[in-house]
Amino acid sequence: MMPIRHLVIIGTGLIGGSVALALKQQGMVERVTGVGRQRDNLLQAIDLNIIDDYSQNIGDAVHDADMVLIAVPVAAYAQVFAELCPALPQDAWVTDAGSTKQSVIHAAQQQGMDMTRFVPAHPIAGTEQSGASAAFASLFQEKRCILTPLEETNADAVQAVRDMWQHTGASVELMAAPEHDAIMASISHLPHFTAFALMNALPDQEALRFAAGGFRDITRIASSSPDMWRDIGLCNSDAIVHNIDALQSELDVLKQALVNNNGALLLQKFQAAKQTRDQWLIEHGESI
Amino acid sequence: MMPIRHLVIIGTGLIGGSVALALKQQGMVERVTGVGRQRDNLLQAIDLNIIDDYSQNIGDAVHDADMVLIAVPVAAYAQVFAELCPALPQDAWVTDAGSTKQSVIHAAQQQGMDMTRFVPAHPIAGTEQSGASAAFASLFQEKRCILTPLEETNADAVQAVRDMWQHTGASVELMAAPEHDAIMASISHLPHFTAFALMNALPDQEALRFAAGGFRDITRIASSSPDMWRDIGLCNSDAIVHNIDALQSELDVLKQALVNNNGALLLQKFQAAKQTRDQWLIEHGESI
Repeated sequence: MMPIRHLVIIGTGLIGGSVALALKQQGMVERVTGVGRQRDNLLQAIDLNIIDDYSQNIGDAVHDADMVLIAVPVAAYAQVFAELCPALPQDAWVTDAGSTKQSVIHAAQQQGMDMTRFVPAHPIAGTEQSGASAAFASLFQEKRCILTPLEETNADAVQAVRDMWQHTGASVELMAAPEHDAIMASISHLPHFTAFALMNALPDQEALRFAAGGFRDITRIASSSPDMWRDIGLCNSDAIVHNIDALQSELDVLKQALVNNNGALLLQKFQAAKQTRDQWLIEHGESI
Repeated sequence: MMPIRHLVIIGTGLIGGSVALALKQQGMVERVTGVGRQRDNLLQAIDLNIIDDYSQNIGDAVHDADMVLIAVPVAAYAQVFAELCPALPQDAWVTDAGSTKQSVIHAAQQQGMDMTRFVPAHPIAGTEQSGASAAFASLFQEKRCILTPLEETNADAVQAVRDMWQHTGASVELMAAPEHDAIMASISHLPHFTAFALMNALPDQEALRFAAGGFRDITRIASSSPDMWRDIGLCNSDAIVHNIDALQSELDVLKQALVNNNGALLLQKFQAAKQTRDQWLIEHGESI
């Protein structure tokens, strides 16, 4: 892979900033332009050597780009593609970092994006922090990044985008967007919705005085950004509803076992859950 | 408080062993006898200076005791009280460490325990480890211990048991057993049942390859002991069913909001959850 000559990052926060830092550390990018709404954040990104220059106008920023990374909340994609499409040079590739993929592809198509040049991506990494000041070069090390190209996506685009994410330290895999969204609904979106619901199900906040480490850990992701999770919910609602139904069914089974004093069924369910989790940690524990 | 002259611990595991170590460190016990089924574990407890001697017969062990601590799984209480009651000296107090309190009181009453001398207790502390070798003196430091005496419980018994738990480092509070069980159902039992259900709701174990830190933390307690959680479930089933209903109602609200594309309601629910959790951490974070 040749270094990227001019990378434009739309949304210079934790994810966008960390991509820039990782590629700079690897010598895999010559110039990075940051685009964002908050001038303070962009100035800070320059101070931190995350970006070399900035613009608050997508059209101005991308006219000379060979790679564009969209790293804004998924609800903002329609507006981003509306500004990006008319200005995108013929030889530039586009990727993104959104947590849902079908909605992103839909937003791109709706705005007339040339889909041969867009390689949707989802790096499975993050922290509870946000903003350029939270970015760090090793965020993607040993993390997975899923690409969900369409059939018409240019093979050179896929190769260039794959190279870029690999140089951030991520392990890249390809799959179809619906498969991505179904997997994420089960192992990320449902857990977040469940953590929020568990907090709201507390009958009495006084009880929290007695809550301990187990409660702290199971609700940790209920401290995540409400705006971000509203957006993810609306962008992947069918798959999340499907997974909430699956959880409700499991809760129904446990409830019936309690009502029927069925200790054998409780034990069987708890053993199955523990076995699945312990096996997962044995196989993948070191990469989590 | 005078040191306990002869403490008998029925169940010499993580909890029982840690009580012994803490009291010995404080010089608050002269002799500790361990009772248990597994001779290897008892010999190890002697090697570790957790107990001074052991017996495999409750009647033999307690004839000279002035304090008895029951620290076995809650499902074993009926058998323990059946052996303990005929042998208990007139001047000995009894406490326990079970996670549910109404079921424990019921088991004691059923076996003819003199309830003036029994002070039910629940130290809210533990690790995922078990056995005497997992015990350590600081397990209860800055943790809470709830006592649920009955109206007829002897005031001297309450004072002696309170003193004992305070000397382990725990902060002691009194409440009624039904209140204890309701609180534990909401902040401990429901979260455990939810973690088990989340693991079992996975449509496809292949998806776990992509699970990350959020999933690891929200399911951590699904690696807990299936036997122990079956017992707790059967011993506090009404309150747990009530709390599962509350969680299911919250999940239904989120599901309807997704179906209706109601971003405002999702945002409101997520903000409320985050605010409750963040406030809890501000107020109690250092003691969790």
